Amino acid sequence: MLAILKPTPAPGFTIGDVPMPEPAPGQVLLRVAATSVCGTDVHLFDWNSWAAARVRPPRVVGHEVCGEVVAWGEGVQGPAPGTRVAVESHIVCGHCDECRRGDFHVCENTRILGVDVDGAFATHLAVPEANIWPIGDSVPAEVGAAMEPFGNAVHACSYGDLSGRTVVVFGCGPIGCAAIAVARVQGAARVVAVDRNAYRLNLAERMGAHAIVHASDSAVDDAVRRAAVDPIDCVLEMSGSPVAVASATRLVRPGGWISLLGIGDGPDVVDLSSDVVMKGLSLYGVAGRRIPETWERVTAYVRDGVIDVGALITHRFALREINEAIALMKSGECGKVTLTP
Amino acid sequence: MLAILKPTPAPGFTIGDVPMPEPAPGQVLLRVAATSVCGTDVHLFDWNSWAAARVRPPRVVGHEVCGEVVAWGEGVQGPAPGTRVAVESHIVCGHCDECRRGDFHVCENTRILGVDVDGAFATHLAVPEANIWPIGDSVPAEVGAAMEPFGNAVHACSYGDLSGRTVVVFGCGPIGCAAIAVARVQGAARVVAVDRNAYRLNLAERMGAHAIVHASDSAVDDAVRRAAVDPIDCVLEMSGSPVAVASATRLVRPGGWISLLGIGDGPDVVDLSSDVVMKGLSLYGVAGRRIPETWERVTAYVRDGVIDVGALITHRFALREINEAIALMKSGECGKVTLTP
Amino acid sequence: MLAILKPTPAPGFTIGDVPMPEPAPGQVLLRVAATSVCGTDVHLFDWNSWAAARVRPPRVVGHEVCGEVVAWGEGVQGPAPGTRVAVESHIVCGHCDECRRGDFHVCENTRILGVDVDGAFATHLAVPEANIWPIGDSVPAEVGAAMEPFGNAVHACSYGDLSGRTVVVFGCGPIGCAAIAVARVQGAARVVAVDRNAYRLNLAERMGAHAIVHASDSAVDDAVRRAAVDPIDCVLEMSGSPVAVASATRLVRPGGWISLLGIGDGPDVVDLSSDVVMKGLSLYGVAGRRIPETWERVTAYVRDGVIDVGALITHRFALREINEAIALMKSGECGKVTLTP
Amino acid sequence: MLAILKPTPAPGFTIGDVPMPEPAPGQVLLRVAATSVCGTDVHLFDWNSWAAARVRPPRVVGHEVCGEVVAWGEGVQGPAPGTRVAVESHIVCGHCDECRRGDFHVCENTRILGVDVDGAFATHLAVPEANIWPIGDSVPAEVGAAMEPFGNAVHACSYGDLSGRTVVVFGCGPIGCAAIAVARVQGAARVVAVDRNAYRLNLAERMGAHAIVHASDSAVDDAVRRAAVDPIDCVLEMSGSPVAVASATRLVRPGGWISLLGIGDGPDVVDLSSDVVMKGLSLYGVAGRRIPETWERVTAYVRDGVIDVGALITHRFALREINEAIALMKSGECGKVTLTP
Repeated sequence: MLAILKPTPAPGFTIGDVPMPEPAPGQVLLRVAATSVCGTDVHLFDWNSWAAARVRPPRVVGHEVCGEVVAWGEGVQGPAPGTRVAVESHIVCGHCDECRRGDFHVCENTRILGVDVDGAFATHLAVPEANIWPIGDSVPAEVGAAMEPFGNAVHACSYGDLSGRTVVVFGCGPIGCAAIAVARVQGAARVVAVDRNAYRLNLAERMGAHAIVHASDSAVDDAVRRAAVDPIDCVLEMSGSPVAVASATRLVRPGGWISLLGIGDGPDVVDLSSDVVMKGLSLYGVAGRRIPETWERVTAYVRDGVIDVGALITHRFALREINEAIALMKSGECGKVTLTP
Repeated sequence: MLAILKPTPAPGFTIGDVPMPEPAPGQVLLRVAATSVCGTDVHLFDWNSWAAARVRPPRVVGHEVCGEVVAWGEGVQGPAPGTRVAVESHIVCGHCDECRRGDFHVCENTRILGVDVDGAFATHLAVPEANIWPIGDSVPAEVGAAMEPFGNAVHACSYGDLSGRTVVVFGCGPIGCAAIAVARVQGAARVVAVDRNAYRLNLAERMGAHAIVHASDSAVDDAVRRAAVDPIDCVLEMSGSPVAVASATRLVRPGGWISLLGIGDGPDVVDLSSDVVMKGLSLYGVAGRRIPETWERVTAYVRDGVIDVGALITHRFALREINEAIALMKSGECGKVTLTP
Repeated sequence: MLAILKPTPAPGFTIGDVPMPEPAPGQVLLRVAATSVCGTDVHLFDWNSWAAARVRPPRVVGHEVCGEVVAWGEGVQGPAPGTRVAVESHIVCGHCDECRRGDFHVCENTRILGVDVDGAFATHLAVPEANIWPIGDSVPAEVGAAMEPFGNAVHACSYGDLSGRTVVVFGCGPIGCAAIAVARVQGAARVVAVDRNAYRLNLAERMGAHAIVHASDSAVDDAVRRAAVDPIDCVLEMSGSPVAVASATRLVRPGGWISLLGIGDGPDVVDLSSDVVMKGLSLYGVAGRRIPETWERVTAYVRDGVIDVGALITHRFALREINEAIALMKSGECGKVTLTP
Repeated sequence: MLAILKPTPAPGFTIGDVPMPEPAPGQVLLRVAATSVCGTDVHLFDWNSWAAARVRPPRVVGHEVCGEVVAWGEGVQGPAPGTRVAVESHIVCGHCDECRRGDFHVCENTRILGVDVDGAFATHLAVPEANIWPIGDSVPAEVGAAMEPFGNAVHACSYGDLSGRTVVVFGCGPIGCAAIAVARVQGAARVVAVDRNAYRLNLAERMGAHAIVHASDSAVDDAVRRAAVDPIDCVLEMSGSPVAVASATRLVRPGGWISLLGIGDGPDVVDLSSDVVMKGLSLYGVAGRRIPETWERVTAYVRDGVIDVGALITHRFALREINEAIALMKSGECGKVTLTP
């Protein structure tokens, strides 16, 4: 079958032909209907230090995917062939201490689709039955693929009640922009979006931000405070920038909270004593999606169109156009980018 | 009346004679039955940069106190003279945004007894009626005085359910040692205490720590892991040491949490991406005591002797012996130190 | 001053002239800007058994009110004269066990404005400073008066996260209709409104209900299930009808929850074993408003027009037209009804 | 193999010889080390209306079990043969709405071991791998078997924070007595046990109740209030008696809560308006055990002997003595009763 491959431990992808996977016991075989591209895929393409330390080529890449059930492995008794499903990309062990306490999202033995096992940028894909999530017939395939990153945003917004609140989002990539829409539907009174990229700030406004702030402004803290008008109850930190993290702890009002989702390159410098302890803040690290709770909530938002997740999708490519898609991702001039086999 | 004073903006205290306070409208006048000494009082004595920036001498110092109601100011209709009370040392405004959302513990206009207004190291004290907490007749006066710092420990232990959990306490001053006892009574399966001071580690054991670790050990992380045996669910950070904070984020298991109470001297360096975000940790800044929720819980623990708070008290002085008490505090060879008028 | 009075222990109100109140220590005097009528006022008018057992005439009635600060009693130092405020109608003691644990909304010694002390259907009103809530200049006076009953709806919607959820509201009086709007702004995916009264169902639709069900239908359970489409996560029981309560426990999906706010006339018959225990339901009794948490949230919703509370108000009367207002209330052909001095 | 059977749709069990089960795909085969008897087994023996409506004989009965892994079905890759495990008796579907939101404990398609599929009163047992819970080598087999009902008690005590609280337990069967021990280890200040049976009240005292009340007393409410001394924060309702449920709603202080676990025979009559709504109570139906959260907590309590679950076990029988065990259960003169193959 056609697949996008990391063929060797070096930069770049190849478009190749690989054997179609067989569903192992406990797995289902999916025909891929749509996929989308994550920043992680760009890291894999570039073969950065994280990728070099973790990935063992050759590897089929890609992990944001919507598919249709084609066949069952042994011991699997459903769902019916033809069932349309979204896919949780983290394959958890079910046996470690974290899994045993229900914290599947931080399983110590997590294997990630398209990173640790063969992934979704292909015509077919085999995944554990436990990783599929039926979506019904009304959700478009590209939205089904985007449910995985959308789930990160839903997870970030599940820490603290946003209704009636003033919320600042640092970082307006697809997850940041999704979080803006989630905060709005949860009743946030005012959402301020912060980024360095005009394209993304424009998308942030379309997803419902009441105000936008260019992070290149010399005095971001002041600009954010003015845009927020009221005291800032919560920051959703989606940028990974150490500057943004420190800014978040200064900006949030006493007793407020911060969801940390962005991943940065190194240690952060924060004045915990004055900006967290004495202000009584709470910080929450957002790893992946709570399983299954986040997925259930994602479905509730997507079903019946409570949130228009499709609005996050700005560009569409064929699977063979992977290099164009990666180049666009690097430009930053895009929201969510899809690949269709 | 006799009082301990910060007379001028310089190091040291004086033992002086000041007019007895009058209860203003909304206040009660208390006869002081017992007080205890806080690290803050040592900072005031030393006149460190925080004290120099905040305090306007002359000022009667001291804020941990148990007293007896003597008289009411205008508009006050109780409690009856003779009622024994503990005292919340933070006088809140009731009108700021934080107070209006019930986050009185982080009131923007907090005035602290013995810091911003005249305090408790005296024979009498006037405080707002809203700051007193009746304790009945069975609680010893020195325990009544220690309920304020004990409340910090109870507040720290209110974030996350400790029953059946493995808990590490960094910093075994009186609040850290109190937290050990609170964690035990909440059903913690194992409590590990960490400090540099042998005296305090000894007190930590008496308050219920299952294991102690000398922080001077060259490899504290490993020593703590061995002492914990099981994965560490929670760290209570009571030391303010930047080393301890970074250690805490490394040590806590994925999905675990940290209560931050210790105050340090400067910014902290933490690898939020790998040690908080990817591990899905939660951090909570513990400011003062939640009002009234923490006080209600404190009372439940003190009443009927659920926790022996008196065991924290290791040394007792007369009010006139303030300099000896401060010297002992500086030596670190003590738990809670009381002063009696 | 002009006031509406329950003059004697018998049905009916009189429009009288009474002395203007003086603010006692700790109180503020308000000039009344707008009031609104509650079902409780109808019970007082009718002098039902509850009223006869509790109220000691003569009594100025009314407790939903917006006013302007005119004067301060002793010990009060704000807010400035002219400040516009909403009013919490429950005057709590601050000293009972419930108050000491922060459950002010169920204070054992609650005195209710217009029931236990003189109330708001007058030109002026004296209330404890702790009962006023500044609302700024942009909130209309009649909305300020309705913030108290609106707060009941906000309190009911604070138990369980409604975003993405399917919610059924039994009873579409003003509080039920307000709850519909609150559920919508919190992101409920589908809200079904149930009542016997066509006028109220019409108002329910205007406040955002996706579907309405006439409670007179012979098979209400089936009709509600059809209208809900998806499993019902939550029922907000605002009717007080024993039929509705039993229906709610049957209708809610396993693991769901019920907020109980409606007050009925007698005991309820519920199959707790099969409909609550085995289904793992949660039930929450909604008494008044959490103080101050609910008020803070109410303000967040009213401020900036997150929710159009004014849409609940369907009829406006002058204070002297109290009898017409009561007659309209009894007809059920109304939403919130205001009285202006 | 030897097994206890419900052979026909009629009262009584037989001791029979049945084929040893084969582990199906996804299942493990266990050698049974110990089992214990539940009230449900008595209902099956008696063939009451619930049993007659649900069970299809012939059926191997029994569902509280500790075993050792012997073999794996297809697709199972662990744990190692010889691993000692406790067993969750509810086999959930993983696909229904409840499972998809993480509420596995109320799965709509739950099949119960020994009720809907062949059970544990035998020498061997086949169960889904997802239903086993490794317990290490230090937990005695009979304690491993009792972890399932102990889990009900842990689940009941997970609703509301019991530390420092006054707790009343209605019904002192093994689950009620276990709840007493759990409440104690979570720091309850006072636990009052209520039952009609002197044997069980004696066991309740051994498990840590501070006071006991004979439910046959003419004025139970008053007796419980006296025994509680302080206001009652929480009732754990383990009896299923309608009298106890109504009593619980009257006894709990305003703002308190009730965990409902006992199953009764018919509808309950409760004055929700005055005893739940106006008092602001919360009620929680305790169905089975939260999966996996409750099991993780159970393990934490059993491991290292935080709670002595073995103290609940009062009588031990061989598997062939099932009739004697059932007769003892009916007498009520016992705690947990074990059966060993």
